[in-house]
Amino acid sequence: MSAEADIADPRRGPHRQAMSDAQLKVLFDQVSNWGRWGADDQRGALNHIGPAEVFAGAALVREGRTISLSRDFPTRPGPENPWPAQHHMLMGGDDCCVPGVEGLEASTDFIGIAFHGMASSHIDALCHVFAQGRMYNGRPATEVRSTGARFNSIMAARDGIVGRGVLLDIPRARGVRYVPSDHMVTAAELEAAEQALGVRVGKGDLLLVRLGRDVRRAEKGDQAVPGLDPRVVAWLHAREVAVLGGDGVHDPIPGGQVHRDWAMPIHMIGLAAMGLHLLDNLNLEPLAVVCDELGRWTFQLVAAPLPIEGGTGSPLNPIAIF
Amino acid sequence: MSAEADIADPRRGPHRQAMSDAQLKVLFDQVSNWGRWGADDQRGALNHIGPAEVFAGAALVREGRTISLSRDFPTRPGPENPWPAQHHMLMGGDDCCVPGVEGLEASTDFIGIAFHGMASSHIDALCHVFAQGRMYNGRPATEVRSTGARFNSIMAARDGIVGRGVLLDIPRARGVRYVPSDHMVTAAELEAAEQALGVRVGKGDLLLVRLGRDVRRAEKGDQAVPGLDPRVVAWLHAREVAVLGGDGVHDPIPGGQVHRDWAMPIHMIGLAAMGLHLLDNLNLEPLAVVCDELGRWTFQLVAAPLPIEGGTGSPLNPIAIF
Amino acid sequence: MSAEADIADPRRGPHRQAMSDAQLKVLFDQVSNWGRWGADDQRGALNHIGPAEVFAGAALVREGRTISLSRDFPTRPGPENPWPAQHHMLMGGDDCCVPGVEGLEASTDFIGIAFHGMASSHIDALCHVFAQGRMYNGRPATEVRSTGARFNSIMAARDGIVGRGVLLDIPRARGVRYVPSDHMVTAAELEAAEQALGVRVGKGDLLLVRLGRDVRRAEKGDQAVPGLDPRVVAWLHAREVAVLGGDGVHDPIPGGQVHRDWAMPIHMIGLAAMGLHLLDNLNLEPLAVVCDELGRWTFQLVAAPLPIEGGTGSPLNPIAIF
Amino acid sequence: MSAEADIADPRRGPHRQAMSDAQLKVLFDQVSNWGRWGADDQRGALNHIGPAEVFAGAALVREGRTISLSRDFPTRPGPENPWPAQHHMLMGGDDCCVPGVEGLEASTDFIGIAFHGMASSHIDALCHVFAQGRMYNGRPATEVRSTGARFNSIMAARDGIVGRGVLLDIPRARGVRYVPSDHMVTAAELEAAEQALGVRVGKGDLLLVRLGRDVRRAEKGDQAVPGLDPRVVAWLHAREVAVLGGDGVHDPIPGGQVHRDWAMPIHMIGLAAMGLHLLDNLNLEPLAVVCDELGRWTFQLVAAPLPIEGGTGSPLNPIAIF
Repeated sequence: MSAEADIADPRRGPHRQAMSDAQLKVLFDQVSNWGRWGADDQRGALNHIGPAEVFAGAALVREGRTISLSRDFPTRPGPENPWPAQHHMLMGGDDCCVPGVEGLEASTDFIGIAFHGMASSHIDALCHVFAQGRMYNGRPATEVRSTGARFNSIMAARDGIVGRGVLLDIPRARGVRYVPSDHMVTAAELEAAEQALGVRVGKGDLLLVRLGRDVRRAEKGDQAVPGLDPRVVAWLHAREVAVLGGDGVHDPIPGGQVHRDWAMPIHMIGLAAMGLHLLDNLNLEPLAVVCDELGRWTFQLVAAPLPIEGGTGSPLNPIAIF
Repeated sequence: MSAEADIADPRRGPHRQAMSDAQLKVLFDQVSNWGRWGADDQRGALNHIGPAEVFAGAALVREGRTISLSRDFPTRPGPENPWPAQHHMLMGGDDCCVPGVEGLEASTDFIGIAFHGMASSHIDALCHVFAQGRMYNGRPATEVRSTGARFNSIMAARDGIVGRGVLLDIPRARGVRYVPSDHMVTAAELEAAEQALGVRVGKGDLLLVRLGRDVRRAEKGDQAVPGLDPRVVAWLHAREVAVLGGDGVHDPIPGGQVHRDWAMPIHMIGLAAMGLHLLDNLNLEPLAVVCDELGRWTFQLVAAPLPIEGGTGSPLNPIAIF
Repeated sequence: MSAEADIADPRRGPHRQAMSDAQLKVLFDQVSNWGRWGADDQRGALNHIGPAEVFAGAALVREGRTISLSRDFPTRPGPENPWPAQHHMLMGGDDCCVPGVEGLEASTDFIGIAFHGMASSHIDALCHVFAQGRMYNGRPATEVRSTGARFNSIMAARDGIVGRGVLLDIPRARGVRYVPSDHMVTAAELEAAEQALGVRVGKGDLLLVRLGRDVRRAEKGDQAVPGLDPRVVAWLHAREVAVLGGDGVHDPIPGGQVHRDWAMPIHMIGLAAMGLHLLDNLNLEPLAVVCDELGRWTFQLVAAPLPIEGGTGSPLNPIAIF
Repeated sequence: MSAEADIADPRRGPHRQAMSDAQLKVLFDQVSNWGRWGADDQRGALNHIGPAEVFAGAALVREGRTISLSRDFPTRPGPENPWPAQHHMLMGGDDCCVPGVEGLEASTDFIGIAFHGMASSHIDALCHVFAQGRMYNGRPATEVRSTGARFNSIMAARDGIVGRGVLLDIPRARGVRYVPSDHMVTAAELEAAEQALGVRVGKGDLLLVRLGRDVRRAEKGDQAVPGLDPRVVAWLHAREVAVLGGDGVHDPIPGGQVHRDWAMPIHMIGLAAMGLHLLDNLNLEPLAVVCDELGRWTFQLVAAPLPIEGGTGSPLNPIAIF
């Protein structure tokens, strides 16, 4: 089974063509949700999730199985992890008497993380990325201060993101091992995956797109990460998707080669225009196995960011429930 | 409505009597789950949650509402928060051009937390507390090294804790505003609350006990936190509860006054003998309001710890879903 | 020996009078060094230290004794230390085999500090404080970005601050135990101390003013910290002092009571107008004992900030050498 | 001028021979200072510095010049810096009004560092390295707890390390650009450098050995770091050196190739047997230039570790004063 061969022509040629700055700006305006839910809205596409969508997600629980979508807390340094997370023991079993609390033996620790890295499963708040100095709902980048975000912080998602999760497992749908890093998956390919897997992405869905990054990494050994074509945001907008997650960061890495002034167009258009929260660097391998085993690609999905006042996102362990 | 008056005599007298060291040791042995699920088990009472329990939790979702049970990420110092969490912006809107990624404007931040504090909503892993040098399943405290826990780390819960949540809202059930800090709630009182609220705690439940800590705090202004009587662990054991959560830390604070050599008996017996994961310092106020409004005290509950290899717990934003 | 009595009338009355905003602005302009050493200068009053001053400091070494002027690294929380420094062991003697280095046993640790606190001995860089949006040499506050200071960072002092240290031990000179917190020491009092101790502060000196904060703290138990009268900056300017250090922060704490819009006038005028680096919260008690014992109040002084690119200062262990 | 050629035969052959475990154990015992300054001593070779040595150092100040020996605070990730230090702005010029202090505009920051890395100029405390489970003065490694070192912490050097610094600039003395990484400099070569530079290392000296690591790095581009032959410790012991510093870590990196069970023999014997504090990863390039320019290789040297209770060392900015 060849990874490279299968996804190639004829689709591949056209959509590798760079979009021009002007085209991307048109796309930005086309999918913009600025003002759609009020001038003060900070939830963006999360507004697509209403009670019915929460209920529909829970209705998918049948087998009573749960799966983590998170990579391990990334404390080990490496090319993909130049700023490793910290896990520091403060008190271990060698010295476990708690000062000031007679008769208590305990161990404690500290964690620290700059979570917007390629080794970290995390959510991007709507203040994480700007386009021409503006973030979601038209607010200026300068509302994100050195002391924290005054608008569009992760607090918008503090009550959790709960609904129907859909996995579009692109390699599985196409019968390949992974998506090549010089290919950007198109909306047509997402629709082909829908058909192959027997699902249809709809309003309020938490869409997860698996590109096989980890399989590719194990085979290739380099740091490239496959991604989606920028035009996909129009499709997400039309389908009224609430959240986009993936095993990479949706935009291919390294970026900037295709669209020079829009280094990460899905981040820039998704977050800033649509108000689409992004789940980056998920571990979708165990999920893909379960979906395959159960023959279904929908499930309840719960993502619970830490309520960090002024935060640009959060580390995250999303749980899929079958 | 008087808080102090209502919970008083006659129950109060007896169970304020300190249990002796010998009595607590008997209790420890009585509820011990060491070896129950195998010599290598690290999940403890989480084993009470099976597919049926996961399914039963999801079946409680009707209104499609979600509620966070987490306090805000505790960055503000104070008497209850002597080691505040860190939220540091790394890049704000004043200087948002990402180095090395042309055309990308972003803001990023760092969080750090020693999460076992009284201001932090968190989960205790089974390696967090020892009793006489042993932790759950009989392992020595020294397996918790300066470099991390080799056994009983939070990784046991990495696929999430998902099931039926039950709120025993003690003040609500008793018609008071909060539990006084010199009172320890007994199993009889938990059962009285079950009756008042029309629920029965059972196998695999994620039990949340609200004592009204925050209401009390606002009124009294001191740092005392009400708690449960140690004998409650026998009741939790009999009911096969999977997880215990609360708005305090289950043991009254300050501890050590009642049981000097067992400063925090519920931690020591619950974690070390029973293998009962604990959810500390939850924010149960919004949940209590919703339960009251809907007239039901059961719901789906999802807790998703960060998968920290060797970690003694995790900060947590549990989500209740109605 | 009464602390309160001695420093009182008649001097005390007048200089407790608040200076008006207009008076402080005049003082600011009077002592401004903006442009004095060129438009790009970032060293400010450190320019008063030349080779002769470095030499003169070293010439004071006779007895061959060294004394730390630093408080302990402030890891313990408390009213004066709401954001304690971090000292985290990463690898202790219980698990000391270094991964990847066979045959090496080691222990390692991590330190973290937000060093601009009242419990931390540190140096303020010239970018630490602004007055009406400007810092030393007229640069705008906005040159201090969320990513670090582009101007006036601590790198200006990276080669160390080395010269003649002078201790003006005010309580010693006046025969009291400490300066009361509602008194601000005047230039006249500094001159009286010079006479009493037999020293004269001059060009390029590293002036240390001891107010007896720690003695006062031990006796009074509150968090107030005595300070200097703002007019002292004119005296420091005339004497061409290079650095000002103290056992407090030069401005009295709590501030803002005397000069409302200039909460910390010595910081604001010293740092921003004069370019005077400040050494805050030194431990001057051991130094005072040695000076008293040797009967001299001058010595070589070496302060070596960590070279933090873009930093607003550094934790510091200044060493006095006799 | 060839780096590789000049240092080669005939000396090179013999001392590249690995010492056997038995030989290294003999060397360890031969230079051991355990008990020399009492059973409770924690200063080790710092005891060689007395008042006369402090005085002699200061007497070398003539030109009034100061030079930092520290690399920049290592915040940038890279192959040599897998755990970068943290420099986080807490409050920048975009939001500089200090909460609770009306009228004060300031910027503040946080630094964090796991300082025992190859990119960090730091001092190793005597508790940093063990040999067969023991540290200096025979104390067990287990006295270094998960909560900090109970013995041999950096507090032994809290009053600073002050005395005569001597630079043995090996490449300069031999007329080459740098020491090759497969060569270990011998005591004979140190003596040859003494002769070439006209200095003699003696009691209480703070010895700095420059191997040209940075010049080599710039030329070769790899991460190898040259070092000293383990037998050098006998020479340091005989000369009664107080501190050893270098532009690398004294032991060659990667280690473990020559002496498999003694991966870093100079660390293991120097710290644990002799009680010799080590200054690692200094920036000796500017110092070498000044020494060359002035034609002298001795100067006053001041190293001021942060007084970290229980710490295994400290980041450091040593200052050479001419």
